Amino acid sequence: MKEIIYTVRVEFGDCDPARIVWFPNFFRWIDASSRNFFVRCGVPPWHETEAATGMIGTPVVDTHARFVKTASYGDTLQVHTCIAEWRGKSFVQRHRILREDDLIMECDEVRIFAARRGDDATGIRAVAIPEDIRRLCE
Amino acid sequence: MKEIIYTVRVEFGDCDPARIVWFPNFFRWIDASSRNFFVRCGVPPWHETEAATGMIGTPVVDTHARFVKTASYGDTLQVHTCIAEWRGKSFVQRHRILREDDLIMECDEVRIFAARRGDDATGIRAVAIPEDIRRLCE
Amino acid sequence: MKEIIYTVRVEFGDCDPARIVWFPNFFRWIDASSRNFFVRCGVPPWHETEAATGMIGTPVVDTHARFVKTASYGDTLQVHTCIAEWRGKSFVQRHRILREDDLIMECDEVRIFAARRGDDATGIRAVAIPEDIRRLCE
Amino acid sequence: MKEIIYTVRVEFGDCDPARIVWFPNFFRWIDASSRNFFVRCGVPPWHETEAATGMIGTPVVDTHARFVKTASYGDTLQVHTCIAEWRGKSFVQRHRILREDDLIMECDEVRIFAARRGDDATGIRAVAIPEDIRRLCE
Repeated sequence: MKEIIYTVRVEFGDCDPARIVWFPNFFRWIDASSRNFFVRCGVPPWHETEAATGMIGTPVVDTHARFVKTASYGDTLQVHTCIAEWRGKSFVQRHRILREDDLIMECDEVRIFAARRGDDATGIRAVAIPEDIRRLCE
Repeated sequence: MKEIIYTVRVEFGDCDPARIVWFPNFFRWIDASSRNFFVRCGVPPWHETEAATGMIGTPVVDTHARFVKTASYGDTLQVHTCIAEWRGKSFVQRHRILREDDLIMECDEVRIFAARRGDDATGIRAVAIPEDIRRLCE
Repeated sequence: MKEIIYTVRVEFGDCDPARIVWFPNFFRWIDASSRNFFVRCGVPPWHETEAATGMIGTPVVDTHARFVKTASYGDTLQVHTCIAEWRGKSFVQRHRILREDDLIMECDEVRIFAARRGDDATGIRAVAIPEDIRRLCE
Repeated sequence: MKEIIYTVRVEFGDCDPARIVWFPNFFRWIDASSRNFFVRCGVPPWHETEAATGMIGTPVVDTHARFVKTASYGDTLQVHTCIAEWRGKSFVQRHRILREDDLIMECDEVRIFAARRGDDATGIRAVAIPEDIRRLCE
């Protein structure tokens, strides 16, 4: 199972008046790590897959996160990302954020491979998991 | 059980290249709705409780969200927030985001009432749920 | 000269460890107020103008802001927006952010009306100011 | 004159429905590069200077930015930061954002060295430029 690490520097502006990372920012980094995972596995960027197959990306349909320790600016965090499970039209992407050996946060996301729905500018639908992409990520 | 509604206008900059709300922004709005819930229930702002009792806020320790429909700029969303469960040192805050009658996203958060941990500038610890705050929110 | 007001609630997460609004957030609000200005003047949303005339929006090419007073969470701010000057292919949009009578921040932006540049997915070019839009905004 | 480079990966979520970087994000990166400049010059982090001398950071009082070319996700940008001018109680920090040799954006910020104003939780005041910090940055 491939695991790819995405490194984050926590900045002053990522922190709130309690001087710790404001939690929505963890989801920013997880989303970046999700995309980085596919790029590093050799999957083409979504604007290329959109042109070739209509696939526009892997939106999240369900996410479950646990916040274990706080982080603050000056910290360097590492997001460890893998695909924990493949399902029919979705997959579970697992992210564990560490500061050296300390677990800061962990998150299981259910994502789908999505294409546009007909003429609808913002509607999306799940497509079957592309076999070539799956092979690149395992 | 009190339910408080927080209204959000979705802006152009809240949306991503797929032209839908970039999901970390939902957590921004949920966090704002969480604080708004306490303010509207009559709980003093956290900088006042910090001065009075050391309590600095209600950080999230666990969150579970389900994304049901997409939203895009121009939409007006309503975040319906209540406290679904009180536990010893934590509580479950439930948020349902609607566009008129359409459910867009729902989220159960476990939050704690937190105070600073000793001299540590960024460490926090859970305190027992303040009875006066609980009464205001039920 | 039309002036449109856009109201902002400052949230906890908009503030930084110095407990004041983190300044990039002012630009978030100014951008929302810029779009709101056109909507309130009766200009169709950009995805409609894109379909009709290729015009995708009004990107900023130059911005000059002055930060006068700090703001913090709990504050309600009002962004007063107008178009201070029309030029050949650009215009100056002026934003003044007030908390009641206190000036918090002011900003002059030079924006253009933009269309896509040929096949380039991310390149944009300035187009002449559409007369019908100008009339709606004066 | 010292120049420090701060590297940014542009992520999907940094881009808007026009598929280019949403401009407030440039200010996020500039603010990070501003702080990085001081750290790399050997200036202690602001929470240390706050404890030692009351100095809480270098808030922006005026900023002037010019957006030259667009950027999009997948791009790697380099923020070149220096201090272009020292004044009595303020300084001009200059940032140029490049993608390889292409200038994407440039920005001159006037910043001050700030301390808290008396008992006011969110008020700040300018202090004289600390000589030791200036020497580290030249």
